[in-house]
Amino acid sequence: MKQIYLDHAAATPVRREVLSVMKPFYSSEFANPSSIHAAGRKAHDAVDHARESVRKIIHAEKPAEIIFTGSGTESINLAIKGIMRASGKKGNHIITTKIEHKAVLETCAYLQKYGGCRVTYIDVDGKGKVNPRDVEKAITPRTVLITVMYANNEIGTIQPIAEIAAIAQKHKVLFHTDACQAAGALDLNVKRLGVDLLTLNGSKMYGPKGTGILYVRNGIRLIPLLHGGGQESGLRSGTENVPGIVGFAAALELAEKERIKEAKRLRSLRDHFIERILKEIPESRLNGHPVRRLPNNVNISFAGVDAEVLVKTLSAEGIYVSAGSACTANSVIVSHVLQAIGIPHDLAMGTLRFTLGKNTTKKELDTVSAILKKNIEIIRKTA
Amino acid sequence: MKQIYLDHAAATPVRREVLSVMKPFYSSEFANPSSIHAAGRKAHDAVDHARESVRKIIHAEKPAEIIFTGSGTESINLAIKGIMRASGKKGNHIITTKIEHKAVLETCAYLQKYGGCRVTYIDVDGKGKVNPRDVEKAITPRTVLITVMYANNEIGTIQPIAEIAAIAQKHKVLFHTDACQAAGALDLNVKRLGVDLLTLNGSKMYGPKGTGILYVRNGIRLIPLLHGGGQESGLRSGTENVPGIVGFAAALELAEKERIKEAKRLRSLRDHFIERILKEIPESRLNGHPVRRLPNNVNISFAGVDAEVLVKTLSAEGIYVSAGSACTANSVIVSHVLQAIGIPHDLAMGTLRFTLGKNTTKKELDTVSAILKKNIEIIRKTA
Repeated sequence: MKQIYLDHAAATPVRREVLSVMKPFYSSEFANPSSIHAAGRKAHDAVDHARESVRKIIHAEKPAEIIFTGSGTESINLAIKGIMRASGKKGNHIITTKIEHKAVLETCAYLQKYGGCRVTYIDVDGKGKVNPRDVEKAITPRTVLITVMYANNEIGTIQPIAEIAAIAQKHKVLFHTDACQAAGALDLNVKRLGVDLLTLNGSKMYGPKGTGILYVRNGIRLIPLLHGGGQESGLRSGTENVPGIVGFAAALELAEKERIKEAKRLRSLRDHFIERILKEIPESRLNGHPVRRLPNNVNISFAGVDAEVLVKTLSAEGIYVSAGSACTANSVIVSHVLQAIGIPHDLAMGTLRFTLGKNTTKKELDTVSAILKKNIEIIRKTA
Repeated sequence: MKQIYLDHAAATPVRREVLSVMKPFYSSEFANPSSIHAAGRKAHDAVDHARESVRKIIHAEKPAEIIFTGSGTESINLAIKGIMRASGKKGNHIITTKIEHKAVLETCAYLQKYGGCRVTYIDVDGKGKVNPRDVEKAITPRTVLITVMYANNEIGTIQPIAEIAAIAQKHKVLFHTDACQAAGALDLNVKRLGVDLLTLNGSKMYGPKGTGILYVRNGIRLIPLLHGGGQESGLRSGTENVPGIVGFAAALELAEKERIKEAKRLRSLRDHFIERILKEIPESRLNGHPVRRLPNNVNISFAGVDAEVLVKTLSAEGIYVSAGSACTANSVIVSHVLQAIGIPHDLAMGTLRFTLGKNTTKKELDTVSAILKKNIEIIRKTA
């Protein structure tokens, strides 16, 4: 059975080119970058080289502004906890949105419960867009950090990051953006964006799992999450994951090189797919912004359908997509993103997310449309 | 030039067999274990399988007692901070030793500075051994956690873990051991050891860098370091590093299978090497315990020698070893371990650590002995 994978927002394969640059660092160039002998220096140089490559791509000032971590989640935790723990008497207030990734929301909830922080969760509009003026209105003299994602992982809506950054700067508040889903699709120039901190995740952009990056603008003080040997300028102790770091940098280079062309290709595929589904499947609606949207994101609600059942029937036919909301053993968890954009409960439970990838073809999408239509008809009849 | 790598305590290569079980999870089986489609289930099953394999090897009760993390450092930080943050009104006192790895010492220092904790650092004897009675004497009604490493990374001394664990249990204090250097050499049976928490590091045992394990006995409450999607029973959020996890488990399986035979082989090589050096090189002394010592660890001080110079001259001849203490740009950092066992400053500055590996041969060690002798003679003459 041919498999069609449309869940690239959940995970991407490691590209062949990426794996091949990683490989020597598993076996022959395996030394610890902290070792002062020649083998250690080689590993150290490989990390330096990767750091410089990332620095150039995101237009950071200095290599030390790039911190390699173990995941996007770790980068986000380091950014938010690191800033708030270092803020001292400056303040304790965080501004974020209702549609952030759980890594942001749960970190904020933790700091609210245990860290003496106060958190404001900004509403978004019906298409998932944050209004920068709402962010500005929420700023108080105690506000230390604004954290708003670059693009949403569920509905793909792209936020006006540069505008929010300008507001943050005006009020002398730090601004972090979770760019995990944006990499490979959107501009990552930290100068143009005006962000102070930015999170990237290797496993969402054809790099290895277990890798993250946190960009921290020079001069910003963070309290580290991991204490020990003092690696990564003291901000992230632990032996550097050399193959992971080298692989992440290679994946980012490739993504950046192909970004504009690939984004165009994906947008065209995406719009074709959306159009076909909305036309052919009754009672379907697109969630998120029709235009300010990740090139590979399609999020559609189908009335009268249980999305988890649909995910499983599609899976049985070799088609891999994601449900917008999830049922666990004991409860139904409606997506907080779909809730925030006002999708009614029953529609939210019938929502699928399709995320296209660099090997996705028009033919695949047409196959999926047809099978989707058939399955939805069956589910609706038997419901 | 043939290279002789004797720095296995700093990093090990990933075994061929390990890399080959990891590989499918980079490219074909790359899905996110949280995805409910068949590809996600496969990834999820691979993680489950790895967890069960680790559980069996360390004789844990339940799979959920095994937490996969991003490094040994992360496991240690999670253990110590996690326990202390969850301790509430029970207490705030940590007992550890003066010779722990920086990941333990810096974490304790952080909690002392910012976390309201009090830390007692137990002395060790001249061979680096902790006296369990000293640990017992340090226990107060406010003691929450004892953390003592299984075997020392610099001088190889093995601690009486089971005895300390029995004391901890008697006083209802939790006990964590950093077993990063012990894996592959010593018994990891958590029941026999009687430990409550145990840290392992993939990159020190022929597994991948960027992987760690924390064993947490069932029923012990921890506050997580990383908040987000709730992976690893909520204790370590972030997409599971599937290839890393699978590779770690495979490395641990192989290490355990070969442990007794390989430890015997290494002990014999180690003792031959120590004997030869002490006999042939004047004014040399072995640091650490002569018998209660990691099978692959040789730590020797040479009077009148700058160890960093020696590491570099050996490196130029393709021999990779570690200096006991390090000079940085602006200061001399004498190893805290060598200080704790009472090695005078000038001897500490002339200390080398050789750590043997599974490909180390007698012939290599004889080559190293001869080159070492020659280089030390030159350095001593020119000093």
